[in-house]
Amino acid sequence: MAQRHPDLTDSTAGPVTTGDALAGYLRGQATEFLRALRLHRETGGGVANGSPGASAGGPASAEVRVDAVRALRRSARRISGSLHTFRPLLEPEWSEGIRPELAWLSGTLALEHAYGARLERLLLALNRLSGAAPVPGQPGGTVGSAAPDANGRAGAHPAAPDRGNLTVGAAKAGALLDRQLTLARTRAHSTALQALGSARFHAVADKVAVLASEVPLTPTAPATALRPLAAAAEERLADAVTALPLVTAGSPYNAAALIHGLSADPAPHPQDAPWDQVRLLLRLHRYACEVVHGRSTPPDVRLLSAGEALDRHRDASEASSAAAQAARTPRIAPATAYALGVLHADQRHEVEAARFAFQRSWQKQTIGAP
Amino acid sequence: MAQRHPDLTDSTAGPVTTGDALAGYLRGQATEFLRALRLHRETGGGVANGSPGASAGGPASAEVRVDAVRALRRSARRISGSLHTFRPLLEPEWSEGIRPELAWLSGTLALEHAYGARLERLLLALNRLSGAAPVPGQPGGTVGSAAPDANGRAGAHPAAPDRGNLTVGAAKAGALLDRQLTLARTRAHSTALQALGSARFHAVADKVAVLASEVPLTPTAPATALRPLAAAAEERLADAVTALPLVTAGSPYNAAALIHGLSADPAPHPQDAPWDQVRLLLRLHRYACEVVHGRSTPPDVRLLSAGEALDRHRDASEASSAAAQAARTPRIAPATAYALGVLHADQRHEVEAARFAFQRSWQKQTIGAP
Repeated sequence: MAQRHPDLTDSTAGPVTTGDALAGYLRGQATEFLRALRLHRETGGGVANGSPGASAGGPASAEVRVDAVRALRRSARRISGSLHTFRPLLEPEWSEGIRPELAWLSGTLALEHAYGARLERLLLALNRLSGAAPVPGQPGGTVGSAAPDANGRAGAHPAAPDRGNLTVGAAKAGALLDRQLTLARTRAHSTALQALGSARFHAVADKVAVLASEVPLTPTAPATALRPLAAAAEERLADAVTALPLVTAGSPYNAAALIHGLSADPAPHPQDAPWDQVRLLLRLHRYACEVVHGRSTPPDVRLLSAGEALDRHRDASEASSAAAQAARTPRIAPATAYALGVLHADQRHEVEAARFAFQRSWQKQTIGAP
Repeated sequence: MAQRHPDLTDSTAGPVTTGDALAGYLRGQATEFLRALRLHRETGGGVANGSPGASAGGPASAEVRVDAVRALRRSARRISGSLHTFRPLLEPEWSEGIRPELAWLSGTLALEHAYGARLERLLLALNRLSGAAPVPGQPGGTVGSAAPDANGRAGAHPAAPDRGNLTVGAAKAGALLDRQLTLARTRAHSTALQALGSARFHAVADKVAVLASEVPLTPTAPATALRPLAAAAEERLADAVTALPLVTAGSPYNAAALIHGLSADPAPHPQDAPWDQVRLLLRLHRYACEVVHGRSTPPDVRLLSAGEALDRHRDASEASSAAAQAARTPRIAPATAYALGVLHADQRHEVEAARFAFQRSWQKQTIGAP
């Protein structure tokens, strides 16, 4: 249905890229992986067996550690994705052995950041819903404060006598989410440090070290063209997009994302799954483009905006689940539960807004392509 | 800013309509008012001093009574609106005397219907948010029932073990709203019946009876053109629309309507007031068109759709307030409060959707006008 990216299918677009390019790409990613790992060890993050919660050094080295973890995830995802898309060009046993290990690694490393980002998203939303100024950086303390809002008016609600009750609810909801998500984040941090100190991780790192010097291609791979495999990845993406309810998503305020909004199931909504599948396929397509065109070619802006919309979809979906989950905490006050209900619905509308944004990017993509 | 309705300003559009047409329109509305009043009395609605809650006759006569009340409101609004727009053509003392009385009457008569419609809107929304099939007509009983939904699947949520908690919340929220709004509706019914039996009402009815035969125009009115006054009403509308945040409203998912969504103030949001003002000015403009063009001319479809969007804005705004108000009921369960929070946010998004719809209608209106 959707028109293909022209320069993956058009054979006149340049020289034929073969398995040699894939090998070069994988070597580059493996090198970046090893560099990030070294950086992480230098900041003390690797000393995991002692006290997993504490990281050595000051705030600067903590920042370096965060960057290092992000770079590790980044190259792990790219290696894993390329092994998947260009599977026929790689020694099957080696390739099938390392892929689940890379997925385990990037999944484990992603959680700490995800919990932190989810908390920040929810606290910012609570501020917005309370009409208070969003103050990122010190989110917890500002809920219900009398700081001036974006229009310069003082946030009079907390002080006004008649508006006190449910704004207390917002503050309590924020404190509850802060407790729950900070705990989850701390646990994820420990788990990540333990993972990076584990024998399982050392085995992955050893395999990536081999990859940095010698990519286990099949004998015919160096002369095999990459474009058909990249085009197949793009087709899988296009098929998955075709299955999305894009007509609904393109009509604003369809209220589809909030159906089952009162379900007590804390898991993300089943209706979100196909969108998340497209998010993953879009990522694979993007990595395949990197392999075929080289990383110096700037990525397609429309592809990036579609991907950002799907990231926002995932973030809002998970944030809405966290609000619903927090509302199931025993013995919370009704005002807290009310605020969490408003917050949940707000994030479900963010989900709907992200679908709308994706639909717009995608239509531009397929209609506007030269 | 906005382009004027062409046939109010274009003097070539037909014969000049004068105060005579206004007199004819007012006589017609007064006659409809008296007919509706007679119909209402025939169904026993007028016997108000005995038991205000009970109405005589069966369900058929109840329906006739509802229609009669609607017709009374309808003509009262039109008389009052026309007296306002064409004020200079009418004897000031008489006109200024009857207008507040007509406003009191239509306001009092509107409440019963408003509470009923609000309850139905909120219960339908609760059904939708629970993923259950909307069953209008028996709204209260179906919340949380296991009726099959729109896709034919059984509404499994109430039965499914893990989804029970907050769906119970939705059912309890529905029961709470049912209690509160049914009580308010019953009171409004009594108040309306008392009003219709009062000396104050009889004085209004006497004045309208005079209007049906003799309209108190000023001496120069029969030869005075109506169009400039109608155009002034349209200009007041256009000015009020210009003051609306239409750029924001036209960008979907702007999340503006939910700012202050966590305020505890049960009154409608201050940000809704300018929209409601436009709703009233649009109504005056529509009535002025009826006077100038005669009621046989079909109304402008785009004007109607803009008006419907503003009605929906008002309904959703008031429904969201009712949900917030219900959440302040002492000693409710957290699950009930959570459901009311989701419901409140849902209705605030309906408010936002209505603004978007109005913006679309209005742009068509001003850009697409011939």
